[in-house]
Amino acid sequence: MAREMFLNALDMNCASFLAQGIWRHPRDRSVEFNTMRYWLDYARLLEAGKFDALFQADTIGVYDVYGGNKDAAITRAVQVPENDPVMVVPAMAAVTEHLCFGTTGNLLYEPPYMFARRISTLDHLTGGRIAWNVVTGILNSGARAAGRDAMPAHDERYDMAEEYLDLMYKLWEGSWDDDAVVADRAAGIYADPAKVHEVHHRGTHYRLDGAHMSQPSPQRTPVIFQAGASARGAAFAAKHSECIFINGPVPAVMKQKIAETRAQAATFGRDPADIKFFAGLSVIVAKTESAARARYEEYRKYATVDAVLCHVSASLNIDLAKYPLDEPIAYQKTDANQTAMEALTQRKDRVFTVRQVAEEMAVSGRNLLLVGSPEQVANTMIEWVDMGGIDGFNLARLVMPGSVEEFVELVVPILQSRGYYKKAYTPGTMREKLGGGPRLPATHPAAAFRNGNVK
Amino acid sequence: MAREMFLNALDMNCASFLAQGIWRHPRDRSVEFNTMRYWLDYARLLEAGKFDALFQADTIGVYDVYGGNKDAAITRAVQVPENDPVMVVPAMAAVTEHLCFGTTGNLLYEPPYMFARRISTLDHLTGGRIAWNVVTGILNSGARAAGRDAMPAHDERYDMAEEYLDLMYKLWEGSWDDDAVVADRAAGIYADPAKVHEVHHRGTHYRLDGAHMSQPSPQRTPVIFQAGASARGAAFAAKHSECIFINGPVPAVMKQKIAETRAQAATFGRDPADIKFFAGLSVIVAKTESAARARYEEYRKYATVDAVLCHVSASLNIDLAKYPLDEPIAYQKTDANQTAMEALTQRKDRVFTVRQVAEEMAVSGRNLLLVGSPEQVANTMIEWVDMGGIDGFNLARLVMPGSVEEFVELVVPILQSRGYYKKAYTPGTMREKLGGGPRLPATHPAAAFRNGNVK
Repeated sequence: MAREMFLNALDMNCASFLAQGIWRHPRDRSVEFNTMRYWLDYARLLEAGKFDALFQADTIGVYDVYGGNKDAAITRAVQVPENDPVMVVPAMAAVTEHLCFGTTGNLLYEPPYMFARRISTLDHLTGGRIAWNVVTGILNSGARAAGRDAMPAHDERYDMAEEYLDLMYKLWEGSWDDDAVVADRAAGIYADPAKVHEVHHRGTHYRLDGAHMSQPSPQRTPVIFQAGASARGAAFAAKHSECIFINGPVPAVMKQKIAETRAQAATFGRDPADIKFFAGLSVIVAKTESAARARYEEYRKYATVDAVLCHVSASLNIDLAKYPLDEPIAYQKTDANQTAMEALTQRKDRVFTVRQVAEEMAVSGRNLLLVGSPEQVANTMIEWVDMGGIDGFNLARLVMPGSVEEFVELVVPILQSRGYYKKAYTPGTMREKLGGGPRLPATHPAAAFRNGNVK
Repeated sequence: MAREMFLNALDMNCASFLAQGIWRHPRDRSVEFNTMRYWLDYARLLEAGKFDALFQADTIGVYDVYGGNKDAAITRAVQVPENDPVMVVPAMAAVTEHLCFGTTGNLLYEPPYMFARRISTLDHLTGGRIAWNVVTGILNSGARAAGRDAMPAHDERYDMAEEYLDLMYKLWEGSWDDDAVVADRAAGIYADPAKVHEVHHRGTHYRLDGAHMSQPSPQRTPVIFQAGASARGAAFAAKHSECIFINGPVPAVMKQKIAETRAQAATFGRDPADIKFFAGLSVIVAKTESAARARYEEYRKYATVDAVLCHVSASLNIDLAKYPLDEPIAYQKTDANQTAMEALTQRKDRVFTVRQVAEEMAVSGRNLLLVGSPEQVANTMIEWVDMGGIDGFNLARLVMPGSVEEFVELVVPILQSRGYYKKAYTPGTMREKLGGGPRLPATHPAAAFRNGNVK
């Protein structure tokens, strides 16, 4: 039976995000990322295409693993310069009604009291159209910019994340009761101080004493996004996340990962159905398959190999500048996050060089890549929803905004006609649009902090 | 000779800002401060009235000096709940072309690397319409919310501020050369890494190693606002500020303060004319003087005495709940910041009680208060510009948006006809609109960090 999929645009506030080099394309506008017009046009395009959300990645620091310096990153604009992703959200929200916003916030660098207020403010302003992608950082260059010697160890970061989320839940869910604000003009009473509770948090990593500065926003806690790939990260996601990024080379693999995570969510007392899974996707679509393939070849001409390697080197924390570009490689799986590599090496019929892998990644953006006619793209997306059990996709940009426009024009109508894509937005908050209530359910760990349970 | 004055709207992202109690007025919309519509309507109103900027105050923490608890603050909404002021700026900028934005940023609570990027992003998005009001906090409740025992001592805060500003200048002015970004599609070169410099800052209070994440924005450093009242604060303002808030009971007193600050700016090598001075002002205007006076009496009915005392107690760090409300007081000047008190006690013909002072403050919002016909208000404003040597005003809101609408409708045309108010916006960045160049002049201390001088 047809099931409507969710669709996010996947992007970053920078010129070159995942498809390294595509900013060079004559029709690409992403070098305009510093301007207001770029983001307002984007917002209107996404809402016209009934995208659920713009999801923005964010990485603090500059990629300096490749070659041991930042030269490739700066030269090729590999996610640098990169502006604050949150700042475009209020502007885009001002010109849209339903489009939601997933913003990445790095808990290593965001002081909790200020961050909680910023997110609450966004949730208020947008009428509850906000999600938070919880990240803990990956770059030592980011840690050094924040006055540290290096990143904390992986498990310590997740310890910090657990504590940080508890602290956020205390502020968002517990500090102000639902009926604290009365705004009674005649009595001159805005809120009841007995219903506003001070958080007193003394943890291992954080300390905070005070009431939240914002009154309860439509969602209180924003929709929680996460993309944990390690065992610890997956457990964290199963406990806290409402939306999880998942990558896998084929639907069966995704289906297995999803089943495992849902089962793990149940062990935390959650309803497994309360988690939605999104697969990263890049699409090159044209009216015919051959036109789409020609477009792929055209895009590949702009592939910038050292930019890809710069990005991947930072993700792996391995300097790929040390490897010869044109010798065959035998890829060993070392990290669950290396989806694109996995996808490529599933194709056993070919031997790859570093250059070839990088060129393909420069188009796929390290996502699953679909190249084909509108019917072909729609068919495969539907197959992944049906067979993989995924709930939706994060669609990475290629040529901006052309690749998004083409998707909206060519693929969306087919998905709609088959019943796999909404014809109208669901009213309400982001959480409601995703099928839930306005607030987190009672089975979510955040609920433990409600009704002033914040000491 | 007529001289155009600058005019900022003075506000805060909360229901009850300075005129404590006026949110109760039937025509007041400020309880809608959580909504997008409120701020977009406000933006359009200010631009229609050719206001230079919306200036937003921000105080981190909850006022808990009065009565030793937060009850009055919560009950009366005294600057709590208070949302993040920065979040409304991109939305308001999206629907305006010239209106500028002065946002308060507290360096005690904003991690420098993230804050520098946020401001640069705003400056990019708005085309250079951003000012930063540098504050170091006043509330122990805010310090406790940030994991501290209490606020650092006053002089230590200014030591931190000096270091923080140097660090910001390194990131904003020095990290990226003007010609670092080439965005050459054919060559595949976005920026020249030799022209992007890593800041290596090891100070007493801050440590940072890394290149700025944003490329140079229209203004690089935002227009610097400050309101230093202490000797140390005044020196800080004379060294760094481009716009200074000044308060004084009469033009002659303001003129003296302005002359002193300008002289001090010269000792730092600055052009004294590069600093603009803004006086805080509240206006009640109606078509006739008697109608304005009637409106004053009407507004005063909404005055909430304990809310005023809650606010003033926090500012003075003295619990005014301990003083009888209805006994005559002899006000002793103890703090240069107590302008409204000063203004009131200049009127030697009356004896005041705490209640009376608080009621008047609830209308004046602790600013200079003008009540009169359009001609009377315009005449006094012109007198203060001519006699006091001030460059403009920060106009605090009373009934929202009525008080702003009335000012725009009744007073602005008179000021325009006399040549004291712009008939059209000056093109360009905020700094250009204020009469400068797009960037800080070479005589400003920030200039020392240019051309990669950031180690």
